[in-house]
Amino acid sequence: MKNLKENAAGRWVPVEINGAQHVPFQGVGKFKPTGRRYGPPLTRCADYPADGNKVVADFKTALKKTGLRDGMTISTHHHFRNGDFVANAIFDAAAELGVKDLRWFPSASFPCHAPIIEHLKSGVVHHIEGSMNGPLGDYCSTGKMRGMAVLRSHGGRYQAVQDGEVHIDIAVIAAPTADPFGNATGDRGPSACGLLGFALADSQYADRVIVATDNLIPFPCIPWQIHGNYVDYVVVVDSIGEPSKIVSGTTEITRSPDRLLIAEYAARFVAETGIMSDGFSFQAGAGGTSLSFSIFLSEMMREHNIKARFARGGSNQYLVNMLEEGLVEYILDGQTFDLEGVRSMRENSNHVNTSPFTSYNYHGKGNFASMVDVVVLGATEVDVQFNANVVTHSDGRLLHGIGGWQNCLFSKCTMLPIPSFRNRIPVLVDHVTTLCGPGELIDVIVTERGIAINPQRQDLLSKLRGSSLPIRPIEDIKSEVEDICGGKSAAPELGEKIIAAIKWVDGTVIDCVRQTETIPSSQ
Amino acid sequence: MKNLKENAAGRWVPVEINGAQHVPFQGVGKFKPTGRRYGPPLTRCADYPADGNKVVADFKTALKKTGLRDGMTISTHHHFRNGDFVANAIFDAAAELGVKDLRWFPSASFPCHAPIIEHLKSGVVHHIEGSMNGPLGDYCSTGKMRGMAVLRSHGGRYQAVQDGEVHIDIAVIAAPTADPFGNATGDRGPSACGLLGFALADSQYADRVIVATDNLIPFPCIPWQIHGNYVDYVVVVDSIGEPSKIVSGTTEITRSPDRLLIAEYAARFVAETGIMSDGFSFQAGAGGTSLSFSIFLSEMMREHNIKARFARGGSNQYLVNMLEEGLVEYILDGQTFDLEGVRSMRENSNHVNTSPFTSYNYHGKGNFASMVDVVVLGATEVDVQFNANVVTHSDGRLLHGIGGWQNCLFSKCTMLPIPSFRNRIPVLVDHVTTLCGPGELIDVIVTERGIAINPQRQDLLSKLRGSSLPIRPIEDIKSEVEDICGGKSAAPELGEKIIAAIKWVDGTVIDCVRQTETIPSSQ
Repeated sequence: MKNLKENAAGRWVPVEINGAQHVPFQGVGKFKPTGRRYGPPLTRCADYPADGNKVVADFKTALKKTGLRDGMTISTHHHFRNGDFVANAIFDAAAELGVKDLRWFPSASFPCHAPIIEHLKSGVVHHIEGSMNGPLGDYCSTGKMRGMAVLRSHGGRYQAVQDGEVHIDIAVIAAPTADPFGNATGDRGPSACGLLGFALADSQYADRVIVATDNLIPFPCIPWQIHGNYVDYVVVVDSIGEPSKIVSGTTEITRSPDRLLIAEYAARFVAETGIMSDGFSFQAGAGGTSLSFSIFLSEMMREHNIKARFARGGSNQYLVNMLEEGLVEYILDGQTFDLEGVRSMRENSNHVNTSPFTSYNYHGKGNFASMVDVVVLGATEVDVQFNANVVTHSDGRLLHGIGGWQNCLFSKCTMLPIPSFRNRIPVLVDHVTTLCGPGELIDVIVTERGIAINPQRQDLLSKLRGSSLPIRPIEDIKSEVEDICGGKSAAPELGEKIIAAIKWVDGTVIDCVRQTETIPSSQ
Repeated sequence: MKNLKENAAGRWVPVEINGAQHVPFQGVGKFKPTGRRYGPPLTRCADYPADGNKVVADFKTALKKTGLRDGMTISTHHHFRNGDFVANAIFDAAAELGVKDLRWFPSASFPCHAPIIEHLKSGVVHHIEGSMNGPLGDYCSTGKMRGMAVLRSHGGRYQAVQDGEVHIDIAVIAAPTADPFGNATGDRGPSACGLLGFALADSQYADRVIVATDNLIPFPCIPWQIHGNYVDYVVVVDSIGEPSKIVSGTTEITRSPDRLLIAEYAARFVAETGIMSDGFSFQAGAGGTSLSFSIFLSEMMREHNIKARFARGGSNQYLVNMLEEGLVEYILDGQTFDLEGVRSMRENSNHVNTSPFTSYNYHGKGNFASMVDVVVLGATEVDVQFNANVVTHSDGRLLHGIGGWQNCLFSKCTMLPIPSFRNRIPVLVDHVTTLCGPGELIDVIVTERGIAINPQRQDLLSKLRGSSLPIRPIEDIKSEVEDICGGKSAAPELGEKIIAAIKWVDGTVIDCVRQTETIPSSQ
């Protein structure tokens, strides 16, 4: 296969992506970057208003002032998740200005961004680099997008910008509160969404930065999650987003008996291994099973009078309850998943906003992820080597982003509490459709039919000898599931065209995604 | 004069400093930098401990691990002002390791750093780039230091590091509280000194960063004024400094009737010009006159029921009182000048720590300094063109640093409340010994004998028409003072050797300082 190389995980991946050279995955911790962090062009105060007032009339004016032209890269952020109004507005303004072939570099996109498909079709947007949840992923899967998608973890996105792999011409930051200088915060204002950490890299490294707000206040905007010293223009709009939509379906507790059982197994695992001990730390994602895990865990912590030093968020009402009850000393939060999280971050100085720089950047001097005692994550597929997939379904369609998932694998104990099958399709497979996380970093698979511990973690296996928890070899669970489902998961029929590259946390290419044969009728 | 060029202010300045080329001052706002911000070498998590524990035994161990060798640059910070223990300890350790020709790049040095003179003599330290208050300045003035000193404002220091003009090999940050990952804060712990903003540039841009603390706490250290993600090693020491010594003699209110009169004139000026109006902003330095100004101002604000939106610190008990009384909505603080300032910063979320990046960096997208309605500063000399000197005395000795002084000149109204003479030597002169601030940025000179308004500020002159304040031409005040003192200030007798370059906020050379003929006996 031309232009493809086999990487250290045995996957054939592209080395030229959208005209630039990329390095195949070399193994965990093997790639050693050379060179220096990217340095954006020098600016000077003489070119900015002395009174600090950077407000301009509208997006079109701001885009014109930034020098927008064909082929540039515009970044946006997903703090509003499925409630964002700004990304669509920016590309509408760009379309009105007549530019073409833009690269959209969102920290993630959601179903609300489906209108961007029209800009892909018309040529305003050339391609998207960033997570594509839902319709955009589906569109990309059909092979209709001109460029190749590049999916990165939150930390990988910071790394790519910091390292100069992705040069952002114009960053657009939707800010629930801002001052005319561009200082901005997400924790207050009528559209408060919590924090703005995903925009940190963009503010630091983009050539030009536009802050959009629906709540302009006099200088100074305190706290300044984003420093106005990085900002070129401020645009006031009617509304930047619907904060109620930061709550997605996945942030509600599961009612499924199977998933409640999985969550309980996972919590018992953390307790019985002794990971749950005074001063420990944990992170649980946004899925319903993860939320239920947190509730079971908090009950066990209360019962044994154990307090955590910190929990990493995605915060939500349950984690906030634990903070306010004193079960958790600090929440180090990367993303608020509901409005209780927003309130807590605003009111409680122990609920601290973090960023992909502090938490996930692999090309830093350490990051927070590897200090977390246990992390609970999801997956669409896991194979018998404990490799996992989080971006494609078993039919090959690209429907999810990586989020912080890859970064969190560096936790001292990574657990995937997942159902053993979905819609009668086994989740445990021989080989994952898309490799997102190497099995050597994944320690425990928790299913409703049993718990599989990675054989590399003999320490965990020996700690649970004699436990009443259903510890089983992964192959056993897989066989049982195949019996129930009537066989293995069928490999999807895919085209030749590579529609997306999957980056590892260090910027190397760990896998790629191919075009689906069948084009969904909705597109 | 060889290697000297006449700059836009008519001063002959060196263009080669310690082997590197520098640009002569071109006028305020005239120099346009090209190129990009400096990017430090890429690092990766695989080279740092996964558990986040970066603690090493002592300074020698840390310095060895950083790869310290001859000719490197080590930076330190002056948050403890005259109570710092760390800088001397670091150079003692470097001396024990046998290295030579180091460049010391402090944010400022104080009399407590006099022991560094021995390292200058022995060859461990080649030269100092940074403010030298007291004995080190005096030593440098004698011409005994091998390299040329370079004095920069706080903002100019950030600019020089950011622009790559000064490459820091090893930054050493004394932190009153830190965790093993290197997250650090100055606002708490037994040696709490307030904030660590002067070390921000160093943490971001140095190749290697060492945090020294006498109060190690478990991860996470909240708040993290310095991000551990920039830190290589953490060293625990018995004591990093004496916080009581952040209070210097200049932070006590003046008892001099003349200076009280000056302070009152200055406050009345601010009130009568209408600068003092609801939502205004001000900054007053640490000198006794400035403190008295703040007290007079607060009385007038109370009387007229006027509240300031923000005050810039150097904070002290008087400014904290204004915040707590509600006369000031926010303190944007660059340096705490007493322990009440430290307490307030720790307890009050409206007392915000800032850095030279936010407040003073001229090679940013604006900074806070130009948004301040009125700033009150000191000076050692002022000439009839309103040019001012802040680093040398009239005898030519280099005894003071620039601090934030140059950066603050960009305020909407810059006032220098100064005595018209000191020790029978006129402060108002024909030409300042050393040019630190161009007259076009200095609006008002307030002396006990009258107030001189820069003729460029006709707006201020017209606002005060009919005022009972003693508004007088600067030449008149100067003549009167010369009559009292028995003539003009005598020009100092200086040698040919240039011992220090004075940078402007944009990195250009605005002036230089020559060797004094007479070597003080104390050296």
